[in-house]
Amino acid sequence: MIASKADLEPQSADPLPNSTRVYVEGTLHPDVRVPMREIALSPTKGLSGTVEVNEPVRVYDTSGPWGDPAFDGDVEKGLPAMRRDWILKRGDVEEYTGREVVPQDNGYLSDEHSRLRNGGLGLRAPESAQRKPLRASAGHPVTQLWYARQGIITPEMEYIAIRENQGIDRLRCDDKSARNTLTHQHSREASPEFIPSIFGRFPQRIPKVITPEFVRDEVAAGRAIIPANINHPENEPMIIGRNFLVKINANIGNSAVASSIEEEVEKMRWATKWGADTVMDLSTGKNIHATREWILRNSPVPIGTVPIYQALEKVGGKAEELSWEIFRDTLVEQAEQGVDYFTIHAGVLLRFIPLTARRMTGIVSRGGSILAKWCLAHHKENFLYTHWDEICEIMAAYDVSFSIGDGLRPGSVADANDEAQFGELYVQGDLTRRAWDHGVQVMNEGPGHVPMHMIEENMAKQLEWCHEAPFYTLGPLTTDVAPGYDHITSGIGAAMIGWYGCAMLCYVTPKEHLGLPNKKDVKDGVITYKIAAHAADLAKGHPGAQYRDNALSKARFEFRWEDQFNLALDPVTARAFHDETLPQEGAKTA
Amino acid sequence: MIASKADLEPQSADPLPNSTRVYVEGTLHPDVRVPMREIALSPTKGLSGTVEVNEPVRVYDTSGPWGDPAFDGDVEKGLPAMRRDWILKRGDVEEYTGREVVPQDNGYLSDEHSRLRNGGLGLRAPESAQRKPLRASAGHPVTQLWYARQGIITPEMEYIAIRENQGIDRLRCDDKSARNTLTHQHSREASPEFIPSIFGRFPQRIPKVITPEFVRDEVAAGRAIIPANINHPENEPMIIGRNFLVKINANIGNSAVASSIEEEVEKMRWATKWGADTVMDLSTGKNIHATREWILRNSPVPIGTVPIYQALEKVGGKAEELSWEIFRDTLVEQAEQGVDYFTIHAGVLLRFIPLTARRMTGIVSRGGSILAKWCLAHHKENFLYTHWDEICEIMAAYDVSFSIGDGLRPGSVADANDEAQFGELYVQGDLTRRAWDHGVQVMNEGPGHVPMHMIEENMAKQLEWCHEAPFYTLGPLTTDVAPGYDHITSGIGAAMIGWYGCAMLCYVTPKEHLGLPNKKDVKDGVITYKIAAHAADLAKGHPGAQYRDNALSKARFEFRWEDQFNLALDPVTARAFHDETLPQEGAKTA
Repeated sequence: MIASKADLEPQSADPLPNSTRVYVEGTLHPDVRVPMREIALSPTKGLSGTVEVNEPVRVYDTSGPWGDPAFDGDVEKGLPAMRRDWILKRGDVEEYTGREVVPQDNGYLSDEHSRLRNGGLGLRAPESAQRKPLRASAGHPVTQLWYARQGIITPEMEYIAIRENQGIDRLRCDDKSARNTLTHQHSREASPEFIPSIFGRFPQRIPKVITPEFVRDEVAAGRAIIPANINHPENEPMIIGRNFLVKINANIGNSAVASSIEEEVEKMRWATKWGADTVMDLSTGKNIHATREWILRNSPVPIGTVPIYQALEKVGGKAEELSWEIFRDTLVEQAEQGVDYFTIHAGVLLRFIPLTARRMTGIVSRGGSILAKWCLAHHKENFLYTHWDEICEIMAAYDVSFSIGDGLRPGSVADANDEAQFGELYVQGDLTRRAWDHGVQVMNEGPGHVPMHMIEENMAKQLEWCHEAPFYTLGPLTTDVAPGYDHITSGIGAAMIGWYGCAMLCYVTPKEHLGLPNKKDVKDGVITYKIAAHAADLAKGHPGAQYRDNALSKARFEFRWEDQFNLALDPVTARAFHDETLPQEGAKTA
Repeated sequence: MIASKADLEPQSADPLPNSTRVYVEGTLHPDVRVPMREIALSPTKGLSGTVEVNEPVRVYDTSGPWGDPAFDGDVEKGLPAMRRDWILKRGDVEEYTGREVVPQDNGYLSDEHSRLRNGGLGLRAPESAQRKPLRASAGHPVTQLWYARQGIITPEMEYIAIRENQGIDRLRCDDKSARNTLTHQHSREASPEFIPSIFGRFPQRIPKVITPEFVRDEVAAGRAIIPANINHPENEPMIIGRNFLVKINANIGNSAVASSIEEEVEKMRWATKWGADTVMDLSTGKNIHATREWILRNSPVPIGTVPIYQALEKVGGKAEELSWEIFRDTLVEQAEQGVDYFTIHAGVLLRFIPLTARRMTGIVSRGGSILAKWCLAHHKENFLYTHWDEICEIMAAYDVSFSIGDGLRPGSVADANDEAQFGELYVQGDLTRRAWDHGVQVMNEGPGHVPMHMIEENMAKQLEWCHEAPFYTLGPLTTDVAPGYDHITSGIGAAMIGWYGCAMLCYVTPKEHLGLPNKKDVKDGVITYKIAAHAADLAKGHPGAQYRDNALSKARFEFRWEDQFNLALDPVTARAFHDETLPQEGAKTA
């Protein structure tokens, strides 16, 4: 089986060591309260008896209310609707009676059957799912992009500005500080002769302090998105853009053969405990609608989906039977539930499909092959492309962001940067502009498998062709020879493309190409990608990014073992590895 | 304890799946026989009943005779002295009565005591250790550098040429081949706008086929070294240079508190089974001389050491009591045993030490701090620097290569590329020239901890200041926030610097900063670094490097699961991960 019994226990509820939850309040919007995790440190004891206090370190926290010991909710209830007032106050949405959930949405699975499979949680939904859905009512989009263009700084934007600074903006970290101070930080131009050429054409613009106005401006320009469906008020706002912290996504999802709803909810909590900034629910099992409802109502991070997966389930897995009507219905179904971004493979055009025939690995994207099959069966243009404007109208009414899919991404190093891949990327650019015309937020998905020396070109072409919309890549894997270690083959490529400007990195777990990830794999994938993202933040010179490295290095140099563990991305493993060799308590203080 | 019982079993003897050992013979030197591992593949079965044969894939093999099922030796005997005839035939060495092993060499440990600790293997040595040592006798160095300069192509050089080509030179891989053929390979100039600036100043020169003459020429120019002590005839020749395959080193070594000689010999075999190109024995325990003897007599790869570690043991751990005489004696002791390269921290000059005072993490290199302590205690210049010419004479007489140490390497991201580090690197350049004047082969050691955007500068300065001698770096780690995962934080930096031109990557295990590595950690470190090195080979366009990626991708695309596992760097883990989800045999063929 995929998950052992221990895997299923809600370990996500265990607090991280020596940490407390703090909230930083907004100024423009006083009801904004941004959660951070504060790690307490022990003092430095000098040889001569001197004692130096080490200030606690604040870190970005994606765990939501689940990471707050004072929170007493549970999965059955769902998380509080934190953003609901902000959304309603804007006065441009209406409650309405949503689309009725039909048996087809859950693969005709009965509630009884579902309970049998999934223990307590059946097809019924958490209490908070009883709300009626919202949609735009004032004749304009209700997207963060639309507000940004009007010059409105939403609570979401102020929330994000505070969150991105991590409370370190007050300290003004830079390379003027001595190297042995916590505020030392290398400039992104520390090695001026060796600045990658991409920055000549697409300069980095990260300011010393992230202000709410800067957030608004980046969103208005389309260089960043805030995935935040008005029907997902539990979502704690975050931003995806290359002038902000690099984000990571974790994929979860049950399948027809394995794993229950409980497991998937726990995987979501587990992934966000370790730092996943968004989660994609790629479920393909029977109870797909119900699984998504449980995840959404309990998720503090944006949830993404690939709606074509559910549409395919509705037509019994036969790609050629897909239709615009079924797809449209699925989009509305998921938009009403609160999905924050949709992967839509509208760039897989009929004329690109023959370009994949002489590839080493053809089409490896699931969405890509579904659409290719449909196009060939009907010998018609991709219906997602031909219905693009109608899709945009739906997205605009709920503020669902586009993650324009890369259905022709390379599935091997051999196929990197080929005509099929770049042909689709170019079309993604057109689709991006058209979505912007509808006021819809957009990011673009990218590869895949790319050797190191061909990564920068991917980033540059995406920025050029897609008008600087945020890029969201899977890895890329820099070699194909290490199945079982593809979190590492791809972590290398992810760190590099993050530096070059990729805004979000979709994790790859050790099980990639081999099987479905269990909780250990999810954690390995998340931690590896937090490393890649943070390495990229250091190289990009994100304000304050080096502070945690400095605090940990200082603890290491002073043999403050406990502090070294507690400041680590994974304190549990750091401590366990130390204790394998030197378990004595004394070995942690001397 | 560090090692569990299962760790100690000689798993290194288990053959890798579906593999046979083949030998490719030399032309210039018919007694050259280069081992390779050949992985057999199953045929591709087409839907229409067609059958396509998939040729076996040959891969570089570092496991030596231990990886040959036909070899029936054992650790007690030691490996055959494969190179001995080549060395003797050159007519420029003499046997002599070597330095006597004294109790001090093993920390005054008695044989009885040692057996008690170490089970069967005591202070006595393997049978093959009874040979008398060799040294130069014809008034000239006996180094591969000296021969190369004379225009002599040694058997070692032909061996290396065959080995580097991996038998793929016949296939002429390039980007003219279609992407779905095994011989497709991206050019290193596949993304011409995005070639890192370092290659403008230090062009890559890797030819389509590695010839023995090319090997000779690179060695003669000092751009590559062949670490091959004349007293380590068991060593299978390999080359370290930026126009060859990127190599990796694995550190092993017992300590005063843990692990036996058996464990260290098994770790060496284990590391080379998974692909370590060289092994450094960093033992600091009592039985340091005997441990090294057992490792050398059983190692098919070059062995490196840091002689100051043993010298320090000889003076009871008191750095200030070190002297040139004790160090000199240790160098001869280890040169007679057959150590192939010595890390010597001669660049830690007195005037650099104050530069480390305002660092975040001071001096973190063990060798560096020993020398700094000595310099400060005596207020004298580093005795390794003042005796450099005498050291060179010893190295030249045995063909021990220099690995000039970086005692002031940064121990944190904060300290990267600072004055102390670069001051020492500049001195390494002078020392390199002087060693070359003595006919001694040289590589230079490098960092450490460096954020991504400051890595290329390290490589460029090393090439410039050290006259293109090979660079050998530890990682570098690209962030400090992930103790427990430093194989990954450093694997990112290692892959990048390997691409830029670093010739050998010293592995970092998950236990770095936390404890001593066990066998699992050694394997995790080796596989991660094989990934980094191979990703760099792909980016460098090493001839045929993409062939294995292609073969594996083809197997993946055709659902030939067994072939996919068998072609993986770690077939055992790939199969185990697959079987966790889908254990049925059928799931591997469909």
